[in-house]
Formats: sequence, C-alpha cells, structure tokens
Amino acid sequence: MKFKSPKGTKDYLPEEMIKRQFVLEVIREKFEDYGFDCLETPIIEDWNLLAAKCGEEIKQQIFKFEDKAGRELGLRFDLTVGMARVVANNPQLPKPFKRYCIAPVWRYEDVTKGRKREFWQADIDIVGVKGMEAEAECLACAVDCIKSLGFKDFQIVLNNRKVLDGLLKLAEIPLEKNLEVFRAIDKLAKIGKDGVKKELERIGINEEQIKKLFKLLEIKGDVEEVLERAKKLLKGIESAEEGLKELEKIFELSRIYGFSNYVVISFSLARGLDYYTGPIFEIVVKTAEKIGSIAGGGRYDKLIEIFGGKQTPATGISLGIERIVQIMEEEKMFKLPKTKVKVFVANVNEKVKEEAIKISQKLRERGIACQTDLMNRNLTKQLEYCDSVGIPFVLIVGEKELREKKFKIRDMEKKIEKRLMLEEIFKLLKG
Amino acid sequence: MKFKSPKGTKDYLPEEMIKRQFVLEVIREKFEDYGFDCLETPIIEDWNLLAAKCGEEIKQQIFKFEDKAGRELGLRFDLTVGMARVVANNPQLPKPFKRYCIAPVWRYEDVTKGRKREFWQADIDIVGVKGMEAEAECLACAVDCIKSLGFKDFQIVLNNRKVLDGLLKLAEIPLEKNLEVFRAIDKLAKIGKDGVKKELERIGINEEQIKKLFKLLEIKGDVEEVLERAKKLLKGIESAEEGLKELEKIFELSRIYGFSNYVVISFSLARGLDYYTGPIFEIVVKTAEKIGSIAGGGRYDKLIEIFGGKQTPATGISLGIERIVQIMEEEKMFKLPKTKVKVFVANVNEKVKEEAIKISQKLRERGIACQTDLMNRNLTKQLEYCDSVGIPFVLIVGEKELREKKFKIRDMEKKIEKRLMLEEIFKLLKG
Repeated sequence: MKFKSPKGTKDYLPEEMIKRQFVLEVIREKFEDYGFDCLETPIIEDWNLLAAKCGEEIKQQIFKFEDKAGRELGLRFDLTVGMARVVANNPQLPKPFKRYCIAPVWRYEDVTKGRKREFWQADIDIVGVKGMEAEAECLACAVDCIKSLGFKDFQIVLNNRKVLDGLLKLAEIPLEKNLEVFRAIDKLAKIGKDGVKKELERIGINEEQIKKLFKLLEIKGDVEEVLERAKKLLKGIESAEEGLKELEKIFELSRIYGFSNYVVISFSLARGLDYYTGPIFEIVVKTAEKIGSIAGGGRYDKLIEIFGGKQTPATGISLGIERIVQIMEEEKMFKLPKTKVKVFVANVNEKVKEEAIKISQKLRERGIACQTDLMNRNLTKQLEYCDSVGIPFVLIVGEKELREKKFKIRDMEKKIEKRLMLEEIFKLLKG
Repeated sequence: MKFKSPKGTKDYLPEEMIKRQFVLEVIREKFEDYGFDCLETPIIEDWNLLAAKCGEEIKQQIFKFEDKAGRELGLRFDLTVGMARVVANNPQLPKPFKRYCIAPVWRYEDVTKGRKREFWQADIDIVGVKGMEAEAECLACAVDCIKSLGFKDFQIVLNNRKVLDGLLKLAEIPLEKNLEVFRAIDKLAKIGKDGVKKELERIGINEEQIKKLFKLLEIKGDVEEVLERAKKLLKGIESAEEGLKELEKIFELSRIYGFSNYVVISFSLARGLDYYTGPIFEIVVKTAEKIGSIAGGGRYDKLIEIFGGKQTPATGISLGIERIVQIMEEEKMFKLPKTKVKVFVANVNEKVKEEAIKISQKLRERGIACQTDLMNRNLTKQLEYCDSVGIPFVLIVGEKELREKKFKIRDMEKKIEKRLMLEEIFKLLKG
C-alpha cells in the first residue's frame, strides 16, 4: 500500500526544514526582542468558538469533526481565536498582554501553488491597548522580521474598517451588506475596476453607489495627501473621521519607530475575517505581489467580549510562513547548508570504530553536530554518504592517527585535508 | 458565551511556555548534536495509514474525521507513522536517514494528571541500519537530552520483542495471542504478579503457561547476569536467542557510548504499539515512576515496507514532553524567569515618550528583549506593570536623563538603581 500526505498538506524533508527553521527562528527572535511572550493554545477547538465570529467564508473552510463523546470540534483556522478565548477566561493577565505564537492552522481551501490547507502562521498580538501604539508596535516588529529575513522591497498597506463603514454610509449602502461589499472591493488589485464593478452590481449595488465607492477607492499618492483627500471626501461621517485619525496616528508613530517609508494607504484593502473593527493591514513584497500578502492583521476590539470576557481592545498581525519561504526560495535569498551536521567521524576499519564513536561523543559534548558510521561501511562508502547528505567536514580515524593523536580533517567542499590534534579540530569546527 | 479548551487539551500561558520552550530547546540541540536532521510531516494523515499497523487499542484512540471530499482522515497518534510514509515514498533518501521531529500528537484516552489527548513528542529515528548501532545511538542521544535537562536518577529499561515471541513459544502460547499477552505482562510493575496472572487467565492462558512466562519475567539482577539466565532458559528458541544477542550488543555499545550504568533489562516491558519487531525500550525517572516512562521506543523493521516502501530497517525513540515538564516542575528543576523580556523602557511623562520608543528600538537592534509603555500610563503604573509581568530591569527616561545622556536603570529584584550611559546599559543587559 502506498500512501500520500493528505491533499493540501506537505512533507518537509530536511533540506527544506532547514530553510523553514531559519525563517521561524529569525521571526521568533524578533518577536521576543519586541517583548512578546509565547502563549500556545490547542490545535483543536470547540466548533462553536471557531464559528462564532469568523465570517461565512472561513466557516465553510473549517475542518470540523466530532469526538467520541459527541463534542463538535474543529481544527483552528487561525491563532487569534484561541488566544482571545484564553484572554476572555483569564482576566488576571496583566495588560498590555503581548503574546506571540508560531504554529500551524488549517483551512479547507482550493489548493494552489501559494496556498495549502495546512499552513503555518507567526502571530503577535497586543491585548488591552486602545491607542494606535499597539498597531505601531506590531507593525514595527513585523517590519523588523521581514527585514531581518533579507527582504528590502516591501510595503505595509493600511486601511481601517471604520473608514470602510463610513464609505458605505457615504454611498448609502445598508450596513448589513458590508462584508459582501468589502469582499468585492478587496479584489481591486486582482481583478481591476471593471471586475469589482461587476461583483458589486451582482450583489445589488447601483451605479451611483458604485461611483461614490470609487471616489475613495481611487485615491492614490503619498500617505499625507491620501489622508487629506479622504478627510475631505468623508467629512462629517463620524466613524470615517475617527478611522482616518487612527491611520494618521499610525503614520505619525511609524516615523518614530522608523518604518514610515514602507507605509502606503489603500482604501480597497478590506481583509476577509469578520472580527476586525479598526485598522487593518497587510504587508506585500513588491517583487512577488502575485503570491499575495506575506502578513496581515488588524484590530479586533470586540472578539474577547464575544467570547465571554470583559470588553478588551486588541490588535495583531500574522506572518504567513509558507509564502515567506516560497518567495525567499524563488528569489534565492537562502544561503544555508543542506544539513546541520558539521562533521562525520569516519573510521578506516572495524578496529578503530570504537574510538570513532568516542570521538563523536566528545564532539557532541562540545555542541558540534556530528555523525559517525552505523553501518559498518568501508571508508569510501562513508565518504560517499557524506557527499550525498552534504556534510561539510570528515574527520578520519585510523590506527596511525590514534597513535600520533593527530587526525585528518577533510573539507569536503574545498577538497583540502589537514592533520590536526583533536583540540584543534574542535576549535576549527566550533569557529 | 464562555468557551473552554477541548477536553484533554491545555492552554500554555507565558510562564509555562518558557518552561516548555526550555525543554524543547535543550532536546532540539542534543538531537542536532547527534546528527539528526529535522523532518516534519502533516498533523492530519490518511486514516488507513494511521490504522494500518498501530494495533487495536491505539486505533480506537485516533481522532477520525472526513474532509469535504469524503476523504477519511485522522489526527496523527505518533510521529513515526508519517515519517515511515515519507521514507517509503522517497527511496532516494541517503541511508542511514537520521531524522528528528518535535511536535504534537493526539490520542483519545482517559484524561488523567499525566495524560492529555493533545500532547507533544520529541522523536529521533534512524532508518536503514540493521545493527544495534542504531539503538545505541538513539539511546545515547536520549540519555544526553535527559541529563542535560538535569535528571540524574533514571533508568533505561530494555527488552526485545523477539525474546517475548520466543517466550510465547516456550510457554506454547499461539503467536496470534502475542499482543494480548504482551499487554498483560506490560502491566507487571503497575498491577503486580497477581494482577497480571488474572489478566492472563482472562485471555485464556493456563496455569502452567503462566508459570513458564513468569520464569523469564521474574529474572532480575545486573544486565550480564540477567542475560545469562535468560539465555539458559530460552536455549534453542531461535528468535529468543537472536533477541538476547541484540540486547547483549546494545549493552556492549552502551559502554563505548558511556551510558551503560543506566541500563537495566526487564522482560515484562512490552510496549503498546503493534509495529515493533525487535529491541524495545523505555526511560523511567526513578523518583517519578508513578507518572510512567518519559521516553519509549523500539525497532520497527517492517513498517516502511507495509507502507509500500522497500524493506528498510528502522529504530527510534520518543520523549514525552508533558511528562518531562511535569516531573521537572514537581521536582523544582526549573530555574527560569517568568518572562523573556529583559527590560522595560519607562517614560516619566508624555513629552519623553517618543525618546523612550527610540531607545526601545535601539535595544531591540542589539537583541535585547524589551517593552515600553503603550498605554500612556504614569511612571508608577508602568513600574507596577513590570512587577506584575516579572520584567527584571527598568530603564527610566526623563528630560534630565536625555539632556545628560545618563539613564537610571533599576534592578527590580535587588531594588538597586544605577545611572549609566546607554552603551553601558546595553552591555549590562547583554551580559
């Protein structure tokens, strides 16, 4: 019987895992530098929790099942819902509560090149902060992650659900249509103005209303200019004015944090999830716009209350690991070895095998990753193995070497050999 | 609406996560030192793959569900099955293939203090090695992990399925009863001789057969002595003789690797999984035997073939993260901070807030984990927050400090304050 991994999932062989681990480690380090602590929640959650505020589209994508006691469960579709549940149940947590989580989530979507059903997200969230300081801190941290990974040409795209709500008012579209309208305008970059118009018509928005929507959607330019023009257009609509002020504040803070040159505003950004209530944002790599955003998030001030907690403001951003790895691969940004093994301790024959094992143990004591022969292979076969795995150094143990306490160490790539004392070899490999 | 985490799962708040991360990092480092590379497989697998060779007991414990296309899926119950599938499908992988994986698994079991339904395992496996070198290497690595975590008083309990098969022959018990018999004798330490007898009677083993079983099960003493006595008892039974030779070889190698003083042999060790074919082993912390083993594994030479691959020998061991953390907590082995945040950059008033943010960014550039005020709190409130989160240092930014370029840095635990230049503070916090 042959088995494949389930549709939409993937096996990560060592060479690929080294890339993924590199990305995860860089991100984890930055998250911790910014003062986020790790909080982990289960991969399975109560179905009713998952379905409560995700919106119809995502609801359809949840992997749902029952346990043996008949409890309705689901695989989590994001990392925010579990965290919001924890905060709702733990009012004693000091605020701001800054947490991170790097872990897999599941959505039953159409499988494409950039989209899997099992995929990893790296989230930071700030709970308890009303002001835009939280947005600025999340974005600063995300920018730092992305820069540390080697990205240069990227943009933070900003919008605000409050501005979009105000826009619906301006266009006299009833608020209950908001999610449908948002979903349509969110596609502007992908399907163009005509495409969006058709979608809007399909859901019953008339020509005049569409015209009004596009007055805002088509505002372009540098941040200050865009904000000025939008303010004029939406003057008198309270929620929109509040939303624009928030965007202004984020931009002001971005100057202090030092990431203002990445910020653009796009009023067509809407994002899919139902739970957003304020600023929303995405990060896009300009050379890989086709893949979609590599990070996204926003403010969700009502979610914790919906889950039974006190009213608690919250905001967060999520980095998409698969997309980041994919772009880094396509743009050849990885400079990593094929294996983390640094050295193979080879033996010239059976007689010195014991000594080869002992030397391996000494290397490991010093934190030097090594392998030794486990298959009673001759030296040639041992060297072939090192080549096939990509192990960069081979330490050769023979009887003469053991007597003289000097061992050959071969650099497999440069094809050079030195004879060194063990202590010298430790130094060489550690450095 | 209030929601709990599903039964058998757990939320890990930051303080607990720091402990878990410490354990995972120590283990990961040791795994890599021993030359294992990371391979990750999906959390969901084809139901038929999961059910193929796990045995009836585990099969009943699998979280099973269907996706929207009607595919039967399940949450993995261990990390071995996915890996064996990958090896079966990737014959090009160089052998020995040494892989590790640290990740969650699911079993629908009765929830007890030491047993969850979602729990983490840390696995190493060596694929392609027939000889006991693989067992020795896996055990050496596991021992190193456990010692590095601070454990001293533990035992590696060894047995061999081949010896148990031979024992059934000796007792003239038909081979198809093996799993039932193994399950009964595996409980010897827990339910005692009388308990095991009753279980054996229940499944139709007669008194004389039981007597014969106990002749082997009751052999105790140091490893060499135990092996000698067992050899005599099982003389002429081929599979048993082979199994005993393997145990002898593992013990011999354990001397070279330097872990022989932890090894004991117990012929009542059987382990639950159906797929084992040779040596099996568990690691038990002597001061916490009630919790059960903290690691377990064995040889599974047929699994890869069953999954459609070439006949490929394989062996591995799995460390149980929850149990390790639990024992370390109970025995007060953790000496870790409550948060990874090193310093809080406090401002004395609104006017210097901008500078406090800028100093935070400088700290972060240098890899020093910090927080700063996001809620426009006064200094007293900022300090209270630091206390509640457990942040060890506070850097205080005021107008005078900015003019003089010297800042107060307060050690929150020792309650002492120094006035230092920023560069000096960086050094202090880095060291």
